[in-house]
Amino acid sequence: MNSNNLPIGIFDSGIGGLTVLKEIINRLPSERTIYLGDTARVPYGSRSPETVTRYSFENSRFLFSRGIKLLVIACNTASSVSLERVRRSVSVPVIGVIQPGARAAAAATRNKKVGVIGTDATVRTNAYSSAIRSIDSSIEVFSLACPLFVPLVEEGWTEGAVAELTAETYLRDIRREGIDTLVLGCTHYPLLKGVLSKIMGPGVRLIDSAIETAATIRAALEEQSLLRDVQGDGTGESNREFYVTDSPEKFIDVGERFLGSSISFIKKIELESEV
Amino acid sequence: MNSNNLPIGIFDSGIGGLTVLKEIINRLPSERTIYLGDTARVPYGSRSPETVTRYSFENSRFLFSRGIKLLVIACNTASSVSLERVRRSVSVPVIGVIQPGARAAAAATRNKKVGVIGTDATVRTNAYSSAIRSIDSSIEVFSLACPLFVPLVEEGWTEGAVAELTAETYLRDIRREGIDTLVLGCTHYPLLKGVLSKIMGPGVRLIDSAIETAATIRAALEEQSLLRDVQGDGTGESNREFYVTDSPEKFIDVGERFLGSSISFIKKIELESEV
Repeated sequence: MNSNNLPIGIFDSGIGGLTVLKEIINRLPSERTIYLGDTARVPYGSRSPETVTRYSFENSRFLFSRGIKLLVIACNTASSVSLERVRRSVSVPVIGVIQPGARAAAAATRNKKVGVIGTDATVRTNAYSSAIRSIDSSIEVFSLACPLFVPLVEEGWTEGAVAELTAETYLRDIRREGIDTLVLGCTHYPLLKGVLSKIMGPGVRLIDSAIETAATIRAALEEQSLLRDVQGDGTGESNREFYVTDSPEKFIDVGERFLGSSISFIKKIELESEV
Repeated sequence: MNSNNLPIGIFDSGIGGLTVLKEIINRLPSERTIYLGDTARVPYGSRSPETVTRYSFENSRFLFSRGIKLLVIACNTASSVSLERVRRSVSVPVIGVIQPGARAAAAATRNKKVGVIGTDATVRTNAYSSAIRSIDSSIEVFSLACPLFVPLVEEGWTEGAVAELTAETYLRDIRREGIDTLVLGCTHYPLLKGVLSKIMGPGVRLIDSAIETAATIRAALEEQSLLRDVQGDGTGESNREFYVTDSPEKFIDVGERFLGSSISFIKKIELESEV
């Protein structure tokens, strides 16, 4: 089988990675996709690095068992702690969400002051900070964990008083640093863009990792001549497969809001444990 | 070995059950305790009933392997979906957090209007509502899921503007029903008592399941002559063992705030999977 016609495999701890899938569909509408949401073990943000790495390998193994031509780790926590190890163990391109966001932030900042917000685990790894500073070591990076943003988004409270007050409370200190660029270092955060830009003001550019990651995926497929051969007939929902490890109903409910389109093929699976 | 000297086994999805442990220590200071927090798989509140039941059995099996005289399911979600099945499969008393809270609410209400707040999963099972109405079918029960309360408590934002605004948003409708009693149907919620009583006003009695559960445990041990023989020398921290399935550091950090005392013996374990 021509590997160009194989799907792109994407995994995330839950529904957050759907913001990445949405941008992949925007940019590469003919591509087939397989999305795995590890909803039985979400959230990864509060787990230890060893545990998250084990989960990443289990998720990757499932996607490879279905046949994929490129793997996307659409989860900041998993990208920051396990990308390199997963990449070394497989033969297809592996793309995470950290590098694309870091590149875009380094290109965007004028005053060399960049803020990064994410989960506890992502911030603790310093992955964005290292990636940004390895591009331009003169950039100062201010990182901040905002653990309440994910549950806020999952509850659907992406605007209104609670979201604004929560954002204001978290971002108070980072605003004082005078950053001109803010990386949304968690795949849930694009849904809070309205609130975040209101709180940060017009002088701060928001970097949406989902958009940057989709652009990187397109470039990687082009470079390796892996774009799908067909045009036009691959755009339907039949080319979108979804797998979850728990509660498909809830995934559909919240997920369709993330994706902005309907989820038709979805199946609950059991992952094979490594242990 | 005299089973009176065996510890009480307690499990929860994470740290929430420590509010129950705290009340057990208050009422039964001489008892030894073993607490298991399934921090690798928290939160249970958004998982399916089958998954939560499987986790409950795996947690129980670990505690029984250590030798216990009584099992406490200190998690509302696990109590509401799996208590009966666990109880049928073991030979020691099994106590959950639903029945004690339901009994206290039925006894407290004057106007026969009771509110219950909890996680998605707990509310969906209708466990409190059924338990309260099987005691007194003339009581009207108004149930409400408040998914943001758990992350708020874990973030330590148990007072202040965000907590108050979140509580006000969730509780608006339930206040209009004119309830005189509100069951805190999640083990995290006792830490929000200040905010909740401010929002609900002095006319509404808050029922803390942790306190009620500890009283039920005491009664069960007395009734079955299972109280520990020693007096006085069992009160030290050496009689408190803690096990977690991930991130002991985070458990200690947040847990000591829940417990109001220090956690000295703690160990990370791998649970044996049923599958």
